[in-house]
Amino acid sequence: MPDAILDDISHRRYNPLRGSWILVSPHRTKRPWQGQQEAASQTTVPEYDQSCYLCPGNKRAQGDTNPDYKSTFVFVNDYSAVKEEQAEYHQTEDDGSLSALLLKAESVTGKCYVVTFSPKHNLTLADLQPSEIVAVIDTWTRLYIAHLSPKSPLAQAAGATTLPPSGHQHNVSRPNAQYRYMQIFENKGAAMGCSNPHPHGQIWTTTGLPEEPATELEQLIKYRREKGGVSLLEDYAKLEVDKEERVVYKNKSFVAVCPWWAVWPFEVMIIARQHKRALVDFDDVERKDLADVFSDVTRRYDNLFETQFPYSMGLHQAPLEGSNTEIEASHFHIHFYPPLLRSATVRKFLVGYELMAEPQRDITPEQAAARLRNSGGELYRNEIQ
Amino acid sequence: MPDAILDDISHRRYNPLRGSWILVSPHRTKRPWQGQQEAASQTTVPEYDQSCYLCPGNKRAQGDTNPDYKSTFVFVNDYSAVKEEQAEYHQTEDDGSLSALLLKAESVTGKCYVVTFSPKHNLTLADLQPSEIVAVIDTWTRLYIAHLSPKSPLAQAAGATTLPPSGHQHNVSRPNAQYRYMQIFENKGAAMGCSNPHPHGQIWTTTGLPEEPATELEQLIKYRREKGGVSLLEDYAKLEVDKEERVVYKNKSFVAVCPWWAVWPFEVMIIARQHKRALVDFDDVERKDLADVFSDVTRRYDNLFETQFPYSMGLHQAPLEGSNTEIEASHFHIHFYPPLLRSATVRKFLVGYELMAEPQRDITPEQAAARLRNSGGELYRNEIQ
Ligand SMILES: O=P(O)(O)O[C@H]1O[C@H](CO)[C@@H](O)[C@H](O)[C@H]1O
Ligand SMILES: O=P(O)(O)O[C@H]1O[C@H](CO)[C@@H](O)[C@H](O)[C@H]1O
Repeated sequence: MPDAILDDISHRRYNPLRGSWILVSPHRTKRPWQGQQEAASQTTVPEYDQSCYLCPGNKRAQGDTNPDYKSTFVFVNDYSAVKEEQAEYHQTEDDGSLSALLLKAESVTGKCYVVTFSPKHNLTLADLQPSEIVAVIDTWTRLYIAHLSPKSPLAQAAGATTLPPSGHQHNVSRPNAQYRYMQIFENKGAAMGCSNPHPHGQIWTTTGLPEEPATELEQLIKYRREKGGVSLLEDYAKLEVDKEERVVYKNKSFVAVCPWWAVWPFEVMIIARQHKRALVDFDDVERKDLADVFSDVTRRYDNLFETQFPYSMGLHQAPLEGSNTEIEASHFHIHFYPPLLRSATVRKFLVGYELMAEPQRDITPEQAAARLRNSGGELYRNEIQ
Repeated sequence: MPDAILDDISHRRYNPLRGSWILVSPHRTKRPWQGQQEAASQTTVPEYDQSCYLCPGNKRAQGDTNPDYKSTFVFVNDYSAVKEEQAEYHQTEDDGSLSALLLKAESVTGKCYVVTFSPKHNLTLADLQPSEIVAVIDTWTRLYIAHLSPKSPLAQAAGATTLPPSGHQHNVSRPNAQYRYMQIFENKGAAMGCSNPHPHGQIWTTTGLPEEPATELEQLIKYRREKGGVSLLEDYAKLEVDKEERVVYKNKSFVAVCPWWAVWPFEVMIIARQHKRALVDFDDVERKDLADVFSDVTRRYDNLFETQFPYSMGLHQAPLEGSNTEIEASHFHIHFYPPLLRSATVRKFLVGYELMAEPQRDITPEQAAARLRNSGGELYRNEIQ
């Protein structure tokens, strides 16, 4: 392999999905670590916690009571970062003044949800059966459909999905306004700012297209234009399946890789192998395949250091409203950004140089992928002793 | 004030220095915090620690012994992220293949230094006298000069600086290669990945221009071109001095502000009020003024929550080698990115939404600036009880 030398030398790798570079310093893992240790994950969480605001039947901060839900449960975040209604703000006109040029702001409205993944307080995606994860994917898909612009080229696909009936977990009304983008994500573990171990994710939906998806969309559109209609991520998925060395797991519909341009030590990207624009493009089999790869990746993560592996995870897909060019260039994928580097307690800090100059990583993505490939199988904490 | 409404509504602010947006959700501070608590800072660190690899006279990881230094001390990082010599790597040719397009890498060489700020293990910039901080600035300036391209328009300014003799702390030889960029930075506190409380910073110098300074330089060049030679940051400093509400502190040469587009809760930017391209553009008085503002800002930080305030800090200035356009558009400034949000133990996590979609902050920069303005005066831990 001609690139084996990259295991030994400092180099930069290019991320075509963001149009940006990262610094890789493989020899740097030899550095001793005397800094902060993460708290080892709690393993003694009960199945039901009466002080948890997400457990079935419990009261939430603002007084609402959770139903006795059996699978997923969706509600509007009691501390939403964006709201449907707020005082109107009109940006000061561009009168050529320094203020207009250098102190720019715009109002943002939107809606924030919390989505629980299970009624059981002590489970995580890694503990759930793929069939239970399908229920989470179904719930996300329903929410996406409920917020999708009726004028979107995706509306037809949305109308054709064959989702099972939602039960009472889906107490979500269509917002009055048409929002531009829906970010579905999960923060898992105290190290990633999560303040409650009950398995849950969040959804923030906004009037604007946020920075990251906007940057990716620009790159996806550019590639598609230059390559006559081909998707960057479809090409990339093919290339990685072919090369194998960065592949962690794959099934018919998805491939999980440590991307060439990974920043976080064990960063993983799940990519739809065919060109799929959003959740609504998946049929029953593909939703099952997505649950399968979710289950596989989160189990490998936990097995790697035999701990509840912290991460932030997020879905990138077509905006709720956008031009045909934007919708058609969108390609469904999921980013996992996990901070742990060497063990359950030693993380990578993306700090001084990373914040001021450029993201930097120590182990190569190929080394990370090899270790994750070796961490498959039964979840470590379920193994019979 | 017409913008008072921004204290109450969710909005996005534009960062003209990066050309990017951030989300501000002021009402979100009401959210209760049940997540990770930072360890309170150690206050019982001794003046000399025999196990510290930075204290005078001690042995370092790779066997070298530190001199009995009296002020600052510079050495090549024992675990450098980039090195002067390494195996050669030639990027695979752009033959139009998917590999060439999607798996791009380039070799990076360079030099990494550690700079101690004081021989005393238990001090921080906030504890040092401004006259002692001048010695740190002098050391940075000497290192910048030692790496500056002789062909740079800055070479003349470098030749004209009147730095005091360096003593033995400056055991740094000019590298054989001409590097492109020097990043001077400090990680302070365990929460920001610092593994040793001994006051020190780092310098990473590389063949490439890293992402952040490259992005800023592009924006600075664009502004200068559009405004007929005026510096974005000179205009911005003037505007903020005029408006007052985001100013934390100022002297004749520098202003410290919570920038309009701050991401971190108590983010501060120190800006040269006149157009200065790099450290070598400062005379004796300006170096003193820089030490004064460093001392002031770090003291306010510590006073705010009466703790050793963690942060990452970095200098942005002209590249070591670059076109005249790049050098002339550069404008010296310093970023402080501190994670604490509510107290000495509760930080802001820039995680899920922030990583997947867009940076998000809770308190407004105006609120942060007001609190820092109220935290001036004597360092809390020196006050007579
Ligand atoms: O070099 P140090 O202090 O060991 O390491 C620290 O700073 C570096 C530069 O910002 C980061 O890459 C590391 O993750 C961090 O722990
Ligand atoms: O909403 P939560 O879970 O309280 O908060 C967490 O996720 C948010 C979205 O990524 C972040 O803004 C917060 O800093 C983090 O603590």
